[in-house]
Amino acid sequence: MQGQAQQQAYDRGITIFSPDGRLYQVEYAREAVKRGTASIGIRTAEGVILAADKRSRSPLMEPESVEKIHKADEHIGVASAGHVADARQLIDFARRESQVNRLRYGEPIGIETLTKTITDHIQQYTQIGGARPFGVALIIGGIEDGEPRIFETDPSGTPYEWKALSIGANRADIREYLEEQYDEEMSLEDGIALALEALEDASSDDGLEPTGLGVATINAETETYHEHSVEELEEILETHGLLATDEDEESDDE
Amino acid sequence: MQGQAQQQAYDRGITIFSPDGRLYQVEYAREAVKRGTASIGIRTAEGVILAADKRSRSPLMEPESVEKIHKADEHIGVASAGHVADARQLIDFARRESQVNRLRYGEPIGIETLTKTITDHIQQYTQIGGARPFGVALIIGGIEDGEPRIFETDPSGTPYEWKALSIGANRADIREYLEEQYDEEMSLEDGIALALEALEDASSDDGLEPTGLGVATINAETETYHEHSVEELEEILETHGLLATDEDEESDDE
Amino acid sequence: MQGQAQQQAYDRGITIFSPDGRLYQVEYAREAVKRGTASIGIRTAEGVILAADKRSRSPLMEPESVEKIHKADEHIGVASAGHVADARQLIDFARRESQVNRLRYGEPIGIETLTKTITDHIQQYTQIGGARPFGVALIIGGIEDGEPRIFETDPSGTPYEWKALSIGANRADIREYLEEQYDEEMSLEDGIALALEALEDASSDDGLEPTGLGVATINAETETYHEHSVEELEEILETHGLLATDEDEESDDE
Amino acid sequence: MQGQAQQQAYDRGITIFSPDGRLYQVEYAREAVKRGTASIGIRTAEGVILAADKRSRSPLMEPESVEKIHKADEHIGVASAGHVADARQLIDFARRESQVNRLRYGEPIGIETLTKTITDHIQQYTQIGGARPFGVALIIGGIEDGEPRIFETDPSGTPYEWKALSIGANRADIREYLEEQYDEEMSLEDGIALALEALEDASSDDGLEPTGLGVATINAETETYHEHSVEELEEILETHGLLATDEDEESDDE
Amino acid sequence: MQGQAQQQAYDRGITIFSPDGRLYQVEYAREAVKRGTASIGIRTAEGVILAADKRSRSPLMEPESVEKIHKADEHIGVASAGHVADARQLIDFARRESQVNRLRYGEPIGIETLTKTITDHIQQYTQIGGARPFGVALIIGGIEDGEPRIFETDPSGTPYEWKALSIGANRADIREYLEEQYDEEMSLEDGIALALEALEDASSDDGLEPTGLGVATINAETETYHEHSVEELEEILETHGLLATDEDEESDDE
Amino acid sequence: MQGQAQQQAYDRGITIFSPDGRLYQVEYAREAVKRGTASIGIRTAEGVILAADKRSRSPLMEPESVEKIHKADEHIGVASAGHVADARQLIDFARRESQVNRLRYGEPIGIETLTKTITDHIQQYTQIGGARPFGVALIIGGIEDGEPRIFETDPSGTPYEWKALSIGANRADIREYLEEQYDEEMSLEDGIALALEALEDASSDDGLEPTGLGVATINAETETYHEHSVEELEEILETHGLLATDEDEESDDE
Amino acid sequence: MQGQAQQQAYDRGITIFSPDGRLYQVEYAREAVKRGTASIGIRTAEGVILAADKRSRSPLMEPESVEKIHKADEHIGVASAGHVADARQLIDFARRESQVNRLRYGEPIGIETLTKTITDHIQQYTQIGGARPFGVALIIGGIEDGEPRIFETDPSGTPYEWKALSIGANRADIREYLEEQYDEEMSLEDGIALALEALEDASSDDGLEPTGLGVATINAETETYHEHSVEELEEILETHGLLATDEDEESDDE
Repeated sequence: MQGQAQQQAYDRGITIFSPDGRLYQVEYAREAVKRGTASIGIRTAEGVILAADKRSRSPLMEPESVEKIHKADEHIGVASAGHVADARQLIDFARRESQVNRLRYGEPIGIETLTKTITDHIQQYTQIGGARPFGVALIIGGIEDGEPRIFETDPSGTPYEWKALSIGANRADIREYLEEQYDEEMSLEDGIALALEALEDASSDDGLEPTGLGVATINAETETYHEHSVEELEEILETHGLLATDEDEESDDE
Repeated sequence: MQGQAQQQAYDRGITIFSPDGRLYQVEYAREAVKRGTASIGIRTAEGVILAADKRSRSPLMEPESVEKIHKADEHIGVASAGHVADARQLIDFARRESQVNRLRYGEPIGIETLTKTITDHIQQYTQIGGARPFGVALIIGGIEDGEPRIFETDPSGTPYEWKALSIGANRADIREYLEEQYDEEMSLEDGIALALEALEDASSDDGLEPTGLGVATINAETETYHEHSVEELEEILETHGLLATDEDEESDDE
Repeated sequence: MQGQAQQQAYDRGITIFSPDGRLYQVEYAREAVKRGTASIGIRTAEGVILAADKRSRSPLMEPESVEKIHKADEHIGVASAGHVADARQLIDFARRESQVNRLRYGEPIGIETLTKTITDHIQQYTQIGGARPFGVALIIGGIEDGEPRIFETDPSGTPYEWKALSIGANRADIREYLEEQYDEEMSLEDGIALALEALEDASSDDGLEPTGLGVATINAETETYHEHSVEELEEILETHGLLATDEDEESDDE
Repeated sequence: MQGQAQQQAYDRGITIFSPDGRLYQVEYAREAVKRGTASIGIRTAEGVILAADKRSRSPLMEPESVEKIHKADEHIGVASAGHVADARQLIDFARRESQVNRLRYGEPIGIETLTKTITDHIQQYTQIGGARPFGVALIIGGIEDGEPRIFETDPSGTPYEWKALSIGANRADIREYLEEQYDEEMSLEDGIALALEALEDASSDDGLEPTGLGVATINAETETYHEHSVEELEEILETHGLLATDEDEESDDE
Repeated sequence: MQGQAQQQAYDRGITIFSPDGRLYQVEYAREAVKRGTASIGIRTAEGVILAADKRSRSPLMEPESVEKIHKADEHIGVASAGHVADARQLIDFARRESQVNRLRYGEPIGIETLTKTITDHIQQYTQIGGARPFGVALIIGGIEDGEPRIFETDPSGTPYEWKALSIGANRADIREYLEEQYDEEMSLEDGIALALEALEDASSDDGLEPTGLGVATINAETETYHEHSVEELEEILETHGLLATDEDEESDDE
Repeated sequence: MQGQAQQQAYDRGITIFSPDGRLYQVEYAREAVKRGTASIGIRTAEGVILAADKRSRSPLMEPESVEKIHKADEHIGVASAGHVADARQLIDFARRESQVNRLRYGEPIGIETLTKTITDHIQQYTQIGGARPFGVALIIGGIEDGEPRIFETDPSGTPYEWKALSIGANRADIREYLEEQYDEEMSLEDGIALALEALEDASSDDGLEPTGLGVATINAETETYHEHSVEELEEILETHGLLATDEDEESDDE
Repeated sequence: MQGQAQQQAYDRGITIFSPDGRLYQVEYAREAVKRGTASIGIRTAEGVILAADKRSRSPLMEPESVEKIHKADEHIGVASAGHVADARQLIDFARRESQVNRLRYGEPIGIETLTKTITDHIQQYTQIGGARPFGVALIIGGIEDGEPRIFETDPSGTPYEWKALSIGANRADIREYLEEQYDEEMSLEDGIALALEALEDASSDDGLEPTGLGVATINAETETYHEHSVEELEEILETHGLLATDEDEESDDE
């Protein structure tokens, strides 16, 4: 009781510290991230894989409209978890920054540069009053100087680089799975399989439906973003024995 | 009691997160949507149907002035549910954006583009202080590159694409009815009938009165918005056995 | 007790939603409207009638200065109920908009156009912080393309079109009387009589005093606003047996 | 107790409505008016009379510096009651508006026009945040097109026209006296006498001291503001038997 | 208890009214004035006298630096009581206004004009949010058109003209002394003596020390401000039997 | 208890008065000054002495970086006590003002002029909202027209001139020591000794370490600021028998 | 209990003083610094050493992306502890200031100058409302005029110069270790060893892993920043017997 009352005293203000030096609003924004379905990023020698659980609420909803994987530039993809409308703001910001870089310097923006421009933007919403923090985490993956790279942004505005990571629901379980199974030298295809296996492992369902998934890759050679179609996903799921058996109602999706 | 007191601590601020990562003001705005009468959107191969329950409070009120179905552009209609004055703001915003697109690019705005411009606008009201969120949901339907499309916007600023959906009162019941009866290949006329049946099914009354309804279609071939007159509605209701039998006082409406 | 405490938690903020999706400040502004004396609007084939109860507090007060009926443009009148100073702001706004329309387009502003410009203005005061909503409702009546039309604005900024309506005190009683007695085909003179009868019916006094009334008409043919003099009103009241018998102190008012 | 606690919840905010539709800050500003000494305005066929109780706190204070009656323009006087410093702001505003009118249109400003410009200014302080309402009421009297007119402004920003009125302390008593004694056809001199009798009647003292009074007239013929000297007042008081008998300490005032 | 809790509810806000129409912040600022040592102003036919109790806290403090009497212009002096730093702001304001008047009109500013410019400035800090009222009262004395005049400003921004007055500590006692002893026809020297006697009368000490006093005069003939030296003061005190007998430690002050 | 609760009600606001006319935030800022180590200023016929206790927290900290004595201009030094970062803001402000004076008028700024410019700046932070007061006091010493002068600024923005004073910790003890020992005619060297003796007297330690001290003088003849080196201080301390005997670890400091 | 409640009353406001003259928000920001892992700065005759504990949360995280040591300019390095996103803001600020100095003056910025520019920036966030303080401490080390120098900044904006210091977790233990072992004349290599020994001493683990460390030096002769590679660190750790024996999983990191 005592602790709770004390906590309430601090979390009303947007940008102030608690006595133990924490920013509650930022921590609550992290809870908003956990409420979102999982997204995964994996880096292999051949490129970057982004995968996301994007099950829709109703068979009448177009699965494409559940936005979890976004193309930010030719060579950069972004996966998100958390508050969808907030994610859109940051994706738009990322796209503008990417275009500005091409216009100003005549070359694609670096993955690390883009990430840090975004995290600096996010940090402002945790220090300056008059707005709340962004309730979303991003995985920013792409090719920089021929090298695949993956970064994470969180609501505090801290950037981290990963070999493989997950954000959103079941983060701990999926990370443990990735830590056990990850091999830096695997192929892009094996990376996709690992991402899907990790999602399936953390899911309470048996198998995955292609319409409830989003998968994109950025190939290190071509440096090009590719979003997988439902057909491609179905084939991959089948190949790896991950296809849900009771999937019947949504298979004829265009 | 405990839980209620805790909740009160968070919902006073417009733009802050609760400890479990939710934005109460956005959730309360969703309640404002539920307080509004139902609107329905249905996509068929032949076009888009928008339908709304717009019963007026008094026989002296002009039913036309109950605004639920709006023409946003030649090829786009919008149905709303929730706070009427808020809806007007977003409709005006949509109309301006549509006109700007025609002026700037010489072509009609895309349905998805328009939707996302609106949801980005809505999101700002959930993150920046000094204003409350919009207490309204919209169904934005129209023809894009010859294809009928329907999108939903909610108070958080999240866009979703649907084959068929409802917003406002009785949302769950009407969605269930639509999930059971929806057929993507049906004709525009059958789509209107389905929408009206869904409204009637969720209503406590027996049958529907044409003056208490709003129905508009956007034909995929002509790409033109058409709002149905009371006479047209009466004919359709009669054809499908949905006409209220006790409708007597408002039938002579111009 | 519980409920009251909970309510207090929400109604302090100007622009926030309560957990059940209501805007308390707007609802309290509606109470301010109810505290005002009644105004009535009636539409007939021959034109528009605006009538208002404008009894003054003292025989020394000039009844003309109790502002309830206002001329907004040659062809538009406005009746108000609620906070007088707020009404003046909206009337001024209406007059400016009307003049701007004449200057810009060389023609009188439409009744619906004017109404919606006003309601959009009102809505801003319910969503953006730093100000309270307007505590007033308006009846905006006039002639548009030869047709008499009457609209209502309320503190939420919602526009509605009516055949006949009342705002302010005794709204429910007067509306019921109007619903029973209203006939769309009656003459302008009969419309005035109906409005006065409705006011008298809802009043606790026996009969009406001409100095305590405001009546204006906008004739569909001449499209001209006319405010009735005390003498004209006295004659009408006498003709319809509505003249207060104990009216003695204020009859010689200039 | 209950009621009081509830009231406190609403009156802290400057510009918000209470659940019963009242603006407490405006009502408290009216209390500030009642705390001020009385001012009276009377309209006769011959002109306008403004009179005020301006007793000073100490014989060492210059009675002229107790500001209750102000000249706003050649043809306009203003009497105030309430917060003195606030009154000065509105008087300055009135003088500027009067001068602007002369410069812009080459003619004296109308009494009604000036009043409504002032009340619109006052209303802003009751709706927009960041300031409190004006704690003062004004009687604005003058000659317009040869006709004497008197208006009242209150803290809500509502304008009313009167034949005779009082503001400030003992308002109810003085109004009752005026209602009984007022005669529209009386001379300017009789009007002064009536105002002074009304002040004396409401006062607990026996008789009035000329140095504790302010009286100004605006003559309908000359359209000129005239502030009465102590000597003039003494003579009038004597003539009407209103002179205080114990007046000895301040009679040699310059 | 009840009363106190109620009071707390209102005095937190800077610019709002209490239910009985008072502005607590202004009243508390008046308390800040009372916490300051006394200042006195006296008007005689020969000119204006300003006097102040300016005892310093320590013999090491330079008595000249205790600012109570200020020269605002050649012909105007100002005595203050209350918050010293606030006084400095208003004195600077007064000096600027005086210089502006000389530059703009080529003549010295009037005492009344200057006072009202200052009180209008003070009033703003009692109505507009974002700042607190000034915690200081001023006595503004000088020669206008050959006539000595003295005005008072208080934290509400109200101007009053006096023959003689005091502000700050012991105000009531000193005023009573002045009311008894004041004679409009006395000489400037007698006015100084009266001011010092009044200070000594209200003081708990026996006699006055010249270093603990500030005295300035503005002569009606020369229209020039003169601040008295410690030596001049010592002589005057001795002449009038007001010199403290135990004054030994500070007499060698330069 | 009662008193404490009442106090809490007022000290939350930055710029408001308490019922007894005090500004709590300014008083709390004075507490911040008391939390700082002591600084002393002494004026002699030969010039100004500034001295400060600047013991560092660790032998690894550079004693020079403990900022207590600052050169503001060639002829002006400033000693501070209280919040270090706030002091830096005011020192920077003082330096800018000094340079501006040289540029604008071609001469060194006066000590009194500089002090009052600073106190006016400080006062703004006690009246205008949106910032807290400065938590620092300053001793501003220098030569003006050949005369040594010393001023104090406090968090309220009040300027005082002194012959000798101390600010910060042990203020009362040190002032008492200075009052007893101060002699206006002593030499600059004796003034330094007096300052160090006063610091030693108030300290709980036996003797002083030169690295824990800051001493600067401004010579009345040369009008030049001189900051004493550790070696100079060691010699002075030894001469006056004030050198700490156990000083061993920091003596070889460069 | 009492104390806690009292504390809560003050720490909600960003920029206000508590009754005992403390700024709680600044003190809580210091807690945020203590929550960060340790960073160490050591100054030797040969140059500056910066070292930091930068263990990552997961073997999949790239250790390089844990930002603790930053190059600010050719001759300046910065080590941070605390809120990572806040540190980035200050590092960016430092880099901009360094570049501006080179552009404006054609020479590298001084270490002290840069530090004080940063602390002045930090101070603003503790005095002006609308933002929280920075939750980070910095060690700013570099070569100025051939001399190695190290400064500390804390959340209050106070600058201190050190011979050797630590910030972040275990500050007291590491400082004690440094005070015992520090020798100003040691070589750069010995300084690195001392920093690592201090980190190991304060750590609960046995030995250090090179991938969990950050070490940079700025050589006094070359005046150039050098960040040590994992290989270089491994060699140093082995030489000094500080290499963790169970380090196996991350050794092949590129």
